[in-house]
Amino acid sequence: MRIRELDETQLIESFQRLLPSGGRTVVGPGDDCAMVAAPEGAFLVTTDVLVSGEHFRLDWSAPDEIGARAAAQNLADIAAMGGRTSSLVVSLVLPRDLDVDWLLALVAGFGERARAAGAGVVGGDLAAGEQLTIAVTAHGWASAAPVLRTGARPGDTLAVAGTLGRSGAGLELLGRGLVAGSEHDPTVLGGLSEAIQVYRAPVPPLEAGPAAAAHGAHAMLDVSDGLVIDAGRMARASAVVVELDSSLLGPDVWALEPAARLCGHPALDWALFGGEDHAMLAAFPPAVVLPQPFRPIGVIGAVEPAAAPRVRLDGREVSGGWDHFRRS
Amino acid sequence: MRIRELDETQLIESFQRLLPSGGRTVVGPGDDCAMVAAPEGAFLVTTDVLVSGEHFRLDWSAPDEIGARAAAQNLADIAAMGGRTSSLVVSLVLPRDLDVDWLLALVAGFGERARAAGAGVVGGDLAAGEQLTIAVTAHGWASAAPVLRTGARPGDTLAVAGTLGRSGAGLELLGRGLVAGSEHDPTVLGGLSEAIQVYRAPVPPLEAGPAAAAHGAHAMLDVSDGLVIDAGRMARASAVVVELDSSLLGPDVWALEPAARLCGHPALDWALFGGEDHAMLAAFPPAVVLPQPFRPIGVIGAVEPAAAPRVRLDGREVSGGWDHFRRS
Repeated sequence: MRIRELDETQLIESFQRLLPSGGRTVVGPGDDCAMVAAPEGAFLVTTDVLVSGEHFRLDWSAPDEIGARAAAQNLADIAAMGGRTSSLVVSLVLPRDLDVDWLLALVAGFGERARAAGAGVVGGDLAAGEQLTIAVTAHGWASAAPVLRTGARPGDTLAVAGTLGRSGAGLELLGRGLVAGSEHDPTVLGGLSEAIQVYRAPVPPLEAGPAAAAHGAHAMLDVSDGLVIDAGRMARASAVVVELDSSLLGPDVWALEPAARLCGHPALDWALFGGEDHAMLAAFPPAVVLPQPFRPIGVIGAVEPAAAPRVRLDGREVSGGWDHFRRS
Repeated sequence: MRIRELDETQLIESFQRLLPSGGRTVVGPGDDCAMVAAPEGAFLVTTDVLVSGEHFRLDWSAPDEIGARAAAQNLADIAAMGGRTSSLVVSLVLPRDLDVDWLLALVAGFGERARAAGAGVVGGDLAAGEQLTIAVTAHGWASAAPVLRTGARPGDTLAVAGTLGRSGAGLELLGRGLVAGSEHDPTVLGGLSEAIQVYRAPVPPLEAGPAAAAHGAHAMLDVSDGLVIDAGRMARASAVVVELDSSLLGPDVWALEPAARLCGHPALDWALFGGEDHAMLAAFPPAVVLPQPFRPIGVIGAVEPAAAPRVRLDGREVSGGWDHFRRS
């Protein structure tokens, strides 16, 4: 059955069965607005939009993976403030010939991730359009002050929770046709399975965000555009130098080796420049024992007189990343 | 200059100069999340997506009007709960060849409406895509309990604040080529000017929402899909019969007459079935003196035994409205 054969009310009712209502939802979907509790007296908010052909491809990802990805990257933004997600709203732009079962699988994938995070899906909007588009807004709360990207201090330990570079490697494997977009069997994918799967539906370490906040992290953000570009954001916001140590990126480099060999691409480059794994990148006071699953990958240094905040790898300046409007 | 010639950071910096920061903004744009005060301990949230060619046409509306419309329909949803808007986030899907000045005018139009409502624009996302798409989420607060659509009671006065049918008439005038899409001069447009302008950039009576709440409105929603379809939503949610009185729709019918004569379309039909003026439709206790600018247009009746909630016009059942996925 195609979207155009259902009316909007039927479609929304089908969705609601797949979506969690959320423990903080005061007024759920169905009125002009939802209402969400925020007993802390403030709420966190973040928004992301995903476009078919730009952020995902229908022939590379299953619909539940696309839905999971849309949820995951917003949940990661809330976590990266040290927060937990209370609620999400989602707007969908749907081609009129889209298959309804396919769409329901996407919504179910989105709903599963929201449910696992304890969040409710409290509203949304539907529109017809040519290009499948998913616009998500997530709301959350932090038990204490939110962890901004501005607070890193010289001497802090730079640490990461979660994987680096897998999504970038997965994208390249699919983009170069080295893995069939339709291939989902992990036993067939072997050592490439993790990269492919993280590209299709990243699993950010959401609980690492509030754990970092509870352990006094000075600064945090999630790695959405690549370690170097996101570390650069922390460097500029905090007016510091981020010093990355390549020897501490070993676990990522080793995990990326099977893909690196197949692509002839340096594994370290993916770890440095690959985006969309949504790891948590945080600066901790030097005396702190890092909460699980954070691992150190460098230190925060001071900006020398007349120099600029920047990122260095093994003492040498490094830059580069992803821009949505330019194509290589 | 085209979008593809700017990098994302430059584009976002250009936007921020055009957007209000908002009195309730604790953490503004630039981190993983914004943070917005909600001293009431809860917040309202609504979301809408607008797609070029579906909800607006680039040859019929100026960019500031498209931006204003995107803001207005979300502000209206907050108002229809009896609330005021604290903050908005907006995601834009932008064709790579879009003109940057055109886009800045759209963002300015959005920002002006947010500023006029006292709201901040606290975040957003940009993506490239084929079809210009604007996804907005708005957040608000209500001083007292929010006014839902479920509370209408038999004996209540049904009242409306704002216009009905203008947007629908404007759409038809433009769609049939009776007014040039490029024509914006109100002296040339004459008696058609209001309809055209409300289609392009509705001005919902935002303060009427909180005023209705303060006057004890039992139920409220904004007329986004047409009076009959939205009154039907109130009827079903409240388990009542909405009794519309066509003689009380006179001000709308008279205002729509110039367009009606030109189109050969009954003016009353636009008032009943035209959407997107975003008037406030509310049920008030019978003893209440209606707050300005509400005017009575009917009454709430009881559902007879074995009958269903529904809408009647002058005692006869009426239905019909707009579905986004079907085209006539």
